[in-house]
Amino acid sequence: MFIMHRMKVLGVIALGVASLVIGILIGHFAIAPRLPTWLQRMSTDGDPKYSNQLHQEIRAEEIHKNLQFFAGKPHIAGSHQEEEVLVNYMYKTWQSNLDGVKIYNYTVLLSYPNASDPNYIAIVSADGVESDLSQKVEKILSPDQNDSTVVNPFNAYSPSGVIVGDLVYVNYATVEDFHFLTRNLSMNLTGTVAIARYGQIFRGDKVRNGELFGCAGMIIYSDPADYAFGDQERVYPDDWWLPGTGAQRGTVLRGDGDPLTPFYPSIGSAFYLDEKDVALPKIPVTPIGYNDAVKYLSKMSGNEAPNSWKGKLNVIYKLGPGFAPPYENSKIKLYVKNYNVKRTIRNVIGFIEGQFEPDRYVALGNHRDAWVFGAIDPSSGTATMMEVSRAMGQLLKKGWRPRRSILFCSWGAEEYGLIGSTEWVEEMEKVLGSRTVAYLNVDIAVEGNSTLRALATPILHKLLFAAARKVENPNPDEIRAGRRSVFDTWVKNIPSSHDPNLPHVNSLGSGSDYSPFLQITGISAADLLYTYDQKYTIASYPMYHSVYETVDLVSRLLDRGFKYHQAVGRIWGELALRLADDVILNFDCLQYAETLKSIVSELQTIYGLTFQEHNLSLDAVKDAVEEFLKAAKALQEKAEKANRENPLEVRKINDQLMQIERAFMDPFGVGGSLNYRHVIYAPNQHNMYAASSFPGLAAAMFDIENDPDQERRWQQVKKEISIIAFTISSAASTMEDPSSIGGGHMKDRSVL
Amino acid sequence: MFIMHRMKVLGVIALGVASLVIGILIGHFAIAPRLPTWLQRMSTDGDPKYSNQLHQEIRAEEIHKNLQFFAGKPHIAGSHQEEEVLVNYMYKTWQSNLDGVKIYNYTVLLSYPNASDPNYIAIVSADGVESDLSQKVEKILSPDQNDSTVVNPFNAYSPSGVIVGDLVYVNYATVEDFHFLTRNLSMNLTGTVAIARYGQIFRGDKVRNGELFGCAGMIIYSDPADYAFGDQERVYPDDWWLPGTGAQRGTVLRGDGDPLTPFYPSIGSAFYLDEKDVALPKIPVTPIGYNDAVKYLSKMSGNEAPNSWKGKLNVIYKLGPGFAPPYENSKIKLYVKNYNVKRTIRNVIGFIEGQFEPDRYVALGNHRDAWVFGAIDPSSGTATMMEVSRAMGQLLKKGWRPRRSILFCSWGAEEYGLIGSTEWVEEMEKVLGSRTVAYLNVDIAVEGNSTLRALATPILHKLLFAAARKVENPNPDEIRAGRRSVFDTWVKNIPSSHDPNLPHVNSLGSGSDYSPFLQITGISAADLLYTYDQKYTIASYPMYHSVYETVDLVSRLLDRGFKYHQAVGRIWGELALRLADDVILNFDCLQYAETLKSIVSELQTIYGLTFQEHNLSLDAVKDAVEEFLKAAKALQEKAEKANRENPLEVRKINDQLMQIERAFMDPFGVGGSLNYRHVIYAPNQHNMYAASSFPGLAAAMFDIENDPDQERRWQQVKKEISIIAFTISSAASTMEDPSSIGGGHMKDRSVL
Repeated sequence: MFIMHRMKVLGVIALGVASLVIGILIGHFAIAPRLPTWLQRMSTDGDPKYSNQLHQEIRAEEIHKNLQFFAGKPHIAGSHQEEEVLVNYMYKTWQSNLDGVKIYNYTVLLSYPNASDPNYIAIVSADGVESDLSQKVEKILSPDQNDSTVVNPFNAYSPSGVIVGDLVYVNYATVEDFHFLTRNLSMNLTGTVAIARYGQIFRGDKVRNGELFGCAGMIIYSDPADYAFGDQERVYPDDWWLPGTGAQRGTVLRGDGDPLTPFYPSIGSAFYLDEKDVALPKIPVTPIGYNDAVKYLSKMSGNEAPNSWKGKLNVIYKLGPGFAPPYENSKIKLYVKNYNVKRTIRNVIGFIEGQFEPDRYVALGNHRDAWVFGAIDPSSGTATMMEVSRAMGQLLKKGWRPRRSILFCSWGAEEYGLIGSTEWVEEMEKVLGSRTVAYLNVDIAVEGNSTLRALATPILHKLLFAAARKVENPNPDEIRAGRRSVFDTWVKNIPSSHDPNLPHVNSLGSGSDYSPFLQITGISAADLLYTYDQKYTIASYPMYHSVYETVDLVSRLLDRGFKYHQAVGRIWGELALRLADDVILNFDCLQYAETLKSIVSELQTIYGLTFQEHNLSLDAVKDAVEEFLKAAKALQEKAEKANRENPLEVRKINDQLMQIERAFMDPFGVGGSLNYRHVIYAPNQHNMYAASSFPGLAAAMFDIENDPDQERRWQQVKKEISIIAFTISSAASTMEDPSSIGGGHMKDRSVL
Repeated sequence: MFIMHRMKVLGVIALGVASLVIGILIGHFAIAPRLPTWLQRMSTDGDPKYSNQLHQEIRAEEIHKNLQFFAGKPHIAGSHQEEEVLVNYMYKTWQSNLDGVKIYNYTVLLSYPNASDPNYIAIVSADGVESDLSQKVEKILSPDQNDSTVVNPFNAYSPSGVIVGDLVYVNYATVEDFHFLTRNLSMNLTGTVAIARYGQIFRGDKVRNGELFGCAGMIIYSDPADYAFGDQERVYPDDWWLPGTGAQRGTVLRGDGDPLTPFYPSIGSAFYLDEKDVALPKIPVTPIGYNDAVKYLSKMSGNEAPNSWKGKLNVIYKLGPGFAPPYENSKIKLYVKNYNVKRTIRNVIGFIEGQFEPDRYVALGNHRDAWVFGAIDPSSGTATMMEVSRAMGQLLKKGWRPRRSILFCSWGAEEYGLIGSTEWVEEMEKVLGSRTVAYLNVDIAVEGNSTLRALATPILHKLLFAAARKVENPNPDEIRAGRRSVFDTWVKNIPSSHDPNLPHVNSLGSGSDYSPFLQITGISAADLLYTYDQKYTIASYPMYHSVYETVDLVSRLLDRGFKYHQAVGRIWGELALRLADDVILNFDCLQYAETLKSIVSELQTIYGLTFQEHNLSLDAVKDAVEEFLKAAKALQEKAEKANRENPLEVRKINDQLMQIERAFMDPFGVGGSLNYRHVIYAPNQHNMYAASSFPGLAAAMFDIENDPDQERRWQQVKKEISIIAFTISSAASTMEDPSSIGGGHMKDRSVL
């Protein structure tokens, strides 16, 4: 009995054990296996808690501190402060906060004024006596501007020279302005000195136009109409408007990157052109403030300028040439002593490694160099980027690790023509082209406190809107008015003309470091900043590139609590987080299709009849856009239905989304220029700041009616239409199913 | 008791069930899960049984049948037979055997002779009487050549024209040959008619040289030295040597693709240049056989040609100009009536969809068009490709499905300058560039039965060797001699000078359709064929581009049992299978490093001293090669140690391997030409058939000592060295860990 019992007990135990073992075997082998944990994580979007933590972590006061450090002293490209002090600080900060940091050096051609022999303007009488000299340095209006390393006003890459000639007023110095003078008024500008006002177009284009129309030199001044909103009383330091003593520095070289190494990076093994073989500006140029300008403008002779040419100085704007009595025998004198020199500039790249796709990069970038203190341009952006990187470093400590890698890019020598970013993209193109998901630029973070403003390729619009919706409005008044988010104020201030429920997003020109990413490599890009009230019809924020652009200006008159900086940082960080952590990229290819459609319909409206007269049509382009739309819909649907547990299916779709922007690149350049290769958007050929849609076609159509060789020009138009149609259709093909190359695919075949 | 018992039983059952459930839970949740089946398959190389099945399935007799169909009738590009009959057959075959098929149409400029007014050569006396006319058609030597659609001998794109002038013998018409005549002998060639022999360089380069040195026309003939190995007795149909009645057709246009649409595809929306705006050949040219050539050469006056210029005709080779008595007053007359016309040519693309990476393409390609019957060029390749595709179709039925997608590409109008493949790569570049793993070309499959011969970029050498080792030797004599595999005979016949245990693999020039893949897009490529005994120092297989290149020639004199065709098909199929099915691509980046090293050391030997004299050195290039070698080693190691269960890690490494070749592309073109962009290999600028290593540098150094502008030329050399150094270093960067862009990476962090 006892034995029986014992056997029974043993039997029961054996039964239990056997059942357990069988159970384990069934559980492990017979039931479809659960996904390994790593595969589950690989299939899941980033945890939303990290987004909230990131917003929390980005702090206004930290940005303020950063700004004090970065904009406390002048830090022009090539200077010790810029290339040593700031670079080393950044390097050390990122070394401790991020996974890695690397410095990239480029030895490039820079340009400076002669500190001991400053540039100036004067009136010179027939017997050679100079009067009415312009100020040689900007007047110090508060002690914080008083620094021995401030570089006097100058236009980079202007040649040295002393020009004496008749003064001519050329308004903004656009091609149209010069056409008005030379065609409508039959003026001969050869040998004259042009005085142009800043605004409307890139200053390098002003100078190029001056050269083309025969001017011997150029003076560029800031008119109160464009920089003080007509109010010359309430200026800095009382208000943020430009005082008459401020002058705008800036490069007048057209084109991006080191002019001595076109298309190739200025690294150790580089081949440098001789300066004489490079198309540098040929005529001397220098900038002045309006206190000086009024002295020359008020003395001019000639016809009165058209109303649209008149600024807000208290003078009668006359065109010249030359001065009115008693100055009729005097000339204007332009004295420029600049020099070009090769110096080493630096980029600093901070790195967070992605855990699943380390070979996919989301890049955030901002330039570091400033003409003087640069508290707005660019240190408002630098201070913000440093804070975003610090906050992400904190997230890493809390266990976050993004799916893809994140790069923080600090560019050198942007002010000289996007040199740091361009050289880097030229050097790294092979790596960047196949790996970079998007480039998010903030140059100036805050130039006003009215509304967000964004530039981006259409594929990023949706993501921009989502990020702006997520960020709290930095303006309490706006919140009280019911506009809780940055998005709400944005859409109110800058509504889209197509859809009043969405903000208008501008196209990307070539004003900042997104340009090489978009134009050399075809990387989808965005640029954001907080801007001033759109009712101010000014050329830029008033203190732009003057000595008055200081921390005092920012912290006292623009963003007292740095909440606007914080908001920009949060949007920037949120964008990066989504791009780095979403399993499927939230790219909006349908928006690209819509944008293409509206460009084409605008073109049709403007040129439809003219084209018809020349036996041309946009039909091929329209067909290509339809093809693009169809492929975009199909891809969007695939992205939504993708099996996220299959990493290769996810990667396939993401690669397609990432490739769309690349597909718009024409390796042979657009509109005859190898510098710009994006067929849909490129800098306007007459204003590098602005973007042209279908830039090749725009260039071919520009002033076509005045071309003596009509046949050649219309052939060019025909060719451009053909290239646009092909390129859009080519972009469509990247969105189609990979099997479409061979005429079809296996249906209903699932890998899993 | 009973109740107790029942309760006990229930208890025991409950225990058993509970244990089972717990077991299932443990088995499913607590033990690290086994991989889902699909993930296991995704992590495993292709089953070797399919490789064996593929070899079995590729059958000699099927290839023979295919050849009879494809080479049974003349099928010149643009003809009904070529673009309708053959294309439709292929379309239907692939539609039933593969997953899909698609036809691509391009309307392109072709060239034909006037059928009713054939080209010829004659001697014309002072009073205008013609004698010694060349044959207007090739003599029919067996009935199978007798076809009304045979196109008479001509050189495509030669202009029409009647030229009467003094005959000059220019040997192979290389630049060196012309320099000998004009520099050493001070001959003035203006207005002469050159007679050149085929061989050594691409015929288009001969014509270009003739133009440059002032010739008014050119005759190109096949010398027995180059096409009959000196034996004019044992010729076709008795042996495979060229009879005196055979003439070599061929294009004389330099450059690839439709000349009317450079860089863009000739699709519906294309912009076509006017013929007058295109650099077509300017002087009339036509080919003749040696029976005709002897008539003119034997009558020439002037100096005796140098020994190296003498062919094997029974004449004293004289240079001219003009004829010796009694013909001293006679001239040579060249009568050419060709016409250019736009016609539609077609590519056919067959498709097998990959199961895990459908967006990765392994492409096999061969052209379809022939000058006449083309039983060797290209139908030996076409017949073989059709058999490989049929065999793979059979494998699909047996359950095989490759990891990556496979494309079969049948190109149109290759003979006119790689037109079909170039237009297609131009059209599809955006898709191909990011997705194509490799392109495997077979133009001619069998031009002899001695040994395999291969051209490939270094990254594919290892794979080529492995495939050749796996394929049984088609030659029983070789097997008896202990050389069991294709590899064994290959290494014996064409050993590498660096390693006698490996065969020498040639560099890729621009002789066939691999060129646009490599030169436009940077896709790793290979080309293979079975060739004749290397002891024959002939210019090509003798019957090249003549009417005698028929199925009879192939099946009777070259490959009686089609075993050599079969061997080529097996190697081709094996290569495709490995590239499509290996989890990690078997790409050999170390071989690329080795090859770069040996190119540099060769350069150093040849130019080291000269460079030193001009203050130049190759140090930057050497440094870059070291960097490349280091990165290659690291990547190779990563590829070996990769965690194959992580699909994204595998993809990352494969993407890096795939990108290496892309990284050698210079988007700005090499040696001043946008047509060729591969910095390491490009067609030799003086012989498009041949490859140049570092072609930009080679072009800069060519004949540099005779350039009057020494400074400019040496600056160019300096620039080319800089580009080479940068490009190699850029390629190295694609192999480095993706984290290296930001200065480091997280160590020991595994995703799984």
